[in-house]
Amino acid sequence: SMVQVAILTVSDTVSSGSGPDRSGPRAVSVVNSLSEKLGGAHVVATAVVPDEVDKIKSTLLEWSDIDKVDLILTIGGTGCTPRDVTPEATKAVIQKETPGLSFVMLQESLKVTPFAMLSRAAAGIRGSTLIINMPGNPNAVAECMEALVPALKHGLKQIKGDKREKHPRHA
Amino acid sequence: SMVQVAILTVSDTVSSGSGPDRSGPRAVSVVNSLSEKLGGAHVVATAVVPDEVDKIKSTLLEWSDIDKVDLILTIGGTGCTPRDVTPEATKAVIQKETPGLSFVMLQESLKVTPFAMLSRAAAGIRGSTLIINMPGNPNAVAECMEALVPALKHGLKQIKGDKREKHPRHA
Amino acid sequence: SMVQVAILTVSDTVSSGSGPDRSGPRAVSVVNSLSEKLGGAHVVATAVVPDEVDKIKSTLLEWSDIDKVDLILTIGGTGCTPRDVTPEATKAVIQKETPGLSFVMLQESLKVTPFAMLSRAAAGIRGSTLIINMPGNPNAVAECMEALVPALKHGLKQIKGDKREKHPRHA
Ligand code: NA
Repeated sequence: SMVQVAILTVSDTVSSGSGPDRSGPRAVSVVNSLSEKLGGAHVVATAVVPDEVDKIKSTLLEWSDIDKVDLILTIGGTGCTPRDVTPEATKAVIQKETPGLSFVMLQESLKVTPFAMLSRAAAGIRGSTLIINMPGNPNAVAECMEALVPALKHGLKQIKGDKREKHPRHA
Repeated sequence: SMVQVAILTVSDTVSSGSGPDRSGPRAVSVVNSLSEKLGGAHVVATAVVPDEVDKIKSTLLEWSDIDKVDLILTIGGTGCTPRDVTPEATKAVIQKETPGLSFVMLQESLKVTPFAMLSRAAAGIRGSTLIINMPGNPNAVAECMEALVPALKHGLKQIKGDKREKHPRHA
Repeated sequence: SMVQVAILTVSDTVSSGSGPDRSGPRAVSVVNSLSEKLGGAHVVATAVVPDEVDKIKSTLLEWSDIDKVDLILTIGGTGCTPRDVTPEATKAVIQKETPGLSFVMLQESLKVTPFAMLSRAAAGIRGSTLIINMPGNPNAVAECMEALVPALKHGLKQIKGDKREKHPRHA
């Protein structure tokens, strides 16, 4: 059983055709390169939406409630400008917060740049889907995924309700 | 004046009699061994409930509103499986979050295992009672309490409204 | 274009005239000394209110919605005593949380004292105003601002909607 991943680029610029999507395709290749470590992950859907709460929410709901993908990565819209609303859209749909995932990404990003403190990225669970906000910077996705990889495969199994796996130290 | 502690094991397995409670008794002995450092802590109540929001909430409410214990430690139900709902039950009853306590426990647990990032443990205050979620792993309680001990005694005095103590550096 | 800063001392003691405001004036001089690093910051308003949610909220609303200052620093009321309600008042008015700012302040404060884990300080954005809770200890303001300075100027520009600046690594 593979791990189905969907990637949502959140960007007015990309959505309007005013600029290329550099981060979305980068996220796809990061997921592919980590496929085995994530338990057989493959990208089953990608989309681009503008920085609007309703548009972000409806894609998250479709992918979690209807398509029931295992993991959604949002890319962008986590900063402090008036248009950055990805965390608000995400918090409106998740049923359980996963603050530990947000923290390890923040900690990892702060090693690279102090501007990481401006990221407001959220993460949490809706049904059997894990939703994680990532910054829009193309390099950030690789860094954040690197921080999550040691526990992400197990976390995705937990969300699916699998308790058969040998119980790890703390989970 | 002693510090009254109540310990709530949250586990379907233990609650249904399908398995022994390894973590609850361990938490009792951790509290006893730290009694002096916590200002004279002793365990006045223990209980076991299944992983159900209503059952968890009603025990938390009884211990905080009626018994007015000083500290409630919940054990288990902080992971990412569909049955893990201890943080949601806790967030539904606390009136003030204490994110600093959650953070130092997470930070300490991450030193032991990367799976700690999957913990969604919450902490906060209801009335004069501090409620702290701890992971279900028997060793985790000792590690988490160790991280909290340098400030927990003072925090419990603050919650009781005691301002007589010499004001520490930042509290 | 300067950065307008307002400083709100939250203290029953100071508000009632029972004690001097040591932290508010200290915060003013910290802001003045960091003025250039913050993009030309100057203090345009100061006030003192008791530890009451409504009083705190109405000052925050006046300064953000009417005066539209760029940055509000609250001082005090972030601990665990029954009267400490600054984070609750703040969370009631912010429209977006900025958890990364809260985290770097907590991390910095924990280097100085373990009592920092008792701080419940929040931070977030309302309209074009960034609101940050700081502990009441006079030294804490300098420490917290020091932790924020590497990204705060850029964050304030983001909140004003300025995208012209060269996009930093992660923001
Ligand atoms: Na929250």
